[in-house]
Amino acid sequence: MKVGGQRFRTIWLHPTNERVVQLIDQRFLPHQFVVEDVSTVEQMADAIRQMHVRGAGLIGASAGYGMYLAAIEAGPSSPRRVFDRTGSISAKEFDARLTEAAERLKATRPTAVNLAWAIERVRAGLAVKQTLAVQEKIKLALCTAKQIAAEDEENCRMIGQHGLNLIEEITRAKDGKPVNILTHCNAGWLAFVDYGSALAPVYAAHDRGLPVHVWVDETRPRSQGSKLTAWELGQHGVPHTIIADSAGGHLMQRGAVDLVMVGSDRTTRAGDVANKIGTYLKALAAKDNKVPFYVALPSSSFDWAIRDGSEIPIEERSTEEVKRAEGWQDGRMWEVSLAPESSPAANFGFDVTPRRLVTGLITERGVCKADEKSILELFPERAS
Amino acid sequence: MKVGGQRFRTIWLHPTNERVVQLIDQRFLPHQFVVEDVSTVEQMADAIRQMHVRGAGLIGASAGYGMYLAAIEAGPSSPRRVFDRTGSISAKEFDARLTEAAERLKATRPTAVNLAWAIERVRAGLAVKQTLAVQEKIKLALCTAKQIAAEDEENCRMIGQHGLNLIEEITRAKDGKPVNILTHCNAGWLAFVDYGSALAPVYAAHDRGLPVHVWVDETRPRSQGSKLTAWELGQHGVPHTIIADSAGGHLMQRGAVDLVMVGSDRTTRAGDVANKIGTYLKALAAKDNKVPFYVALPSSSFDWAIRDGSEIPIEERSTEEVKRAEGWQDGRMWEVSLAPESSPAANFGFDVTPRRLVTGLITERGVCKADEKSILELFPERAS
Repeated sequence: MKVGGQRFRTIWLHPTNERVVQLIDQRFLPHQFVVEDVSTVEQMADAIRQMHVRGAGLIGASAGYGMYLAAIEAGPSSPRRVFDRTGSISAKEFDARLTEAAERLKATRPTAVNLAWAIERVRAGLAVKQTLAVQEKIKLALCTAKQIAAEDEENCRMIGQHGLNLIEEITRAKDGKPVNILTHCNAGWLAFVDYGSALAPVYAAHDRGLPVHVWVDETRPRSQGSKLTAWELGQHGVPHTIIADSAGGHLMQRGAVDLVMVGSDRTTRAGDVANKIGTYLKALAAKDNKVPFYVALPSSSFDWAIRDGSEIPIEERSTEEVKRAEGWQDGRMWEVSLAPESSPAANFGFDVTPRRLVTGLITERGVCKADEKSILELFPERAS
Repeated sequence: MKVGGQRFRTIWLHPTNERVVQLIDQRFLPHQFVVEDVSTVEQMADAIRQMHVRGAGLIGASAGYGMYLAAIEAGPSSPRRVFDRTGSISAKEFDARLTEAAERLKATRPTAVNLAWAIERVRAGLAVKQTLAVQEKIKLALCTAKQIAAEDEENCRMIGQHGLNLIEEITRAKDGKPVNILTHCNAGWLAFVDYGSALAPVYAAHDRGLPVHVWVDETRPRSQGSKLTAWELGQHGVPHTIIADSAGGHLMQRGAVDLVMVGSDRTTRAGDVANKIGTYLKALAAKDNKVPFYVALPSSSFDWAIRDGSEIPIEERSTEEVKRAEGWQDGRMWEVSLAPESSPAANFGFDVTPRRLVTGLITERGVCKADEKSILELFPERAS
């Protein structure tokens, strides 16, 4: 989507140096727009762990490019592998190094299923081409990484089209008055390669001239709503209002929300949804006030191996994120303390919204109910 | 309660100068403990409006003392009334000045019912003694203000005793394992003259040696949970953990909350509860997870005139509170920006939890269900 009128994606290959991946370092938004060069697995692992990049799809795309960097590093001509500049490397050794890099990348964030999914996809691609020369394997890894990113983009574009129908319906029911959509955290284009999941239908509706307004949960402790969602909506010209995470229930009680749309970091095959901590509370409020609650996700965010959301591992992050706030002041980022130094804190990154609270899932193949039967009707190849 | 081992209340008359009220300026907690001298109505109105003092009971007590300062200012010997230092002032003029001060104080915070309640109580006391000399009226205003504060303290102490029974029951059911209590915002002694409402039972239980642990919602946008609740629990030695406002539902899903206890800024005679924004979301989560949800309030927080919570006016505060965070850094308070400068925000101070989500009300007269019949059984004098 657009940044200051110029088209951007969140991650891309360096235009003149194929050994470098570039990404938007989101830690400085909305105050500074920083593009970071990433050329090693360790840098990519840091970028994911320290949340230079975040969001289901973007974590997947980053992991895909991370595996490409891993292939370069595992290869004989890697500048980081000077000790074996022999020109020859066994397929076994190459694989062993890739496995090591894969484990390092997987350990960065435990909840997002796209992470492991993308890593395994690059490895699976290489596995069926065991006989290739190492240089060809590196090319194949790059090809797969690009494909992961391109599919993420296309899936999000399709989510936008399917979700657009929902917004159009509500617009008709409201006689053309603005549709108020509440979203939690950032599931916009900054969370993917482009378009976003929960925000893709918003952009599609806005671009078609439908009047939409987004209630943006600030999403403590990292304020990804006020820092990222508000920024990207503002850059695209979509009307929006930032609110405290606690305010959504009140707005729904007052009839000020027509639709809740959120993303997902992992959704089980039965439709339980892991997403940013606090999503469950919004789902409860939506149910209590008969507001439709939709989860938008590309199929890469499904975990086909599990049914029950309680099996999803929930990341616990640094408690300093809760005890402090990071924001802009005098031209740079500062952290201020919000709590007594001696008070303990806990920082759960995600919660699980049970399928009974979800009106529907918006995927690249269409909209379905949040139950296993309906999901498998859209994705019959997962029925086994 | 204790601060660094020394006993404090939140507001008191200056020990050597009866024309000065002293209060803890809570804006600098937990980082600095500041006592403020207040000697004019305008200063008191500012202290309430700018939230040097806040919380249902403390707003009431502050308003009571504010009316005492108003009586001094309305009197002939006020240093602020030099233009009529005639030594004589008509009862009518005195009343007119008091009315003006009352309106000024009432306009500071719209949601807390204790504000108008305390102001009217001082005025009603004076109204039945119309024949008193002005100096006697000032003394009477002080006497009423002190009484409001003393009753607030005693009511909170009693709330603690009644709530203690609930915690004892749970302790028995848990075979002595710690009782996990979740609270939202600050309804501790800092929100009253002493003891608190929601935290009074916690202090009573802790002082009796029962194992309790409090999940402290940080309570954006002003962080009164992490700044005030965590501080006062820590000063008293009560185990606690600060969490983001979004985390409570997840904790309840995981069985980590035995009891939710919150305060109230205004409760209708039918049991609908206005409290800090986000309380409603916690009530929904408690219901969904079969966790008891109690509201602790002195009877001064009842609004006997209304039944339906939707009639309660909801304060909207500065949107800068949402777009920024105020915290400690390098020895002083700083504000950092969390959002794009151009993004709008909204800041609703309170929401209304419908009575159907409330397990019970804990008042100074005992515990009752949140319905009109049960409430009136405890307060039969309000039945008319």
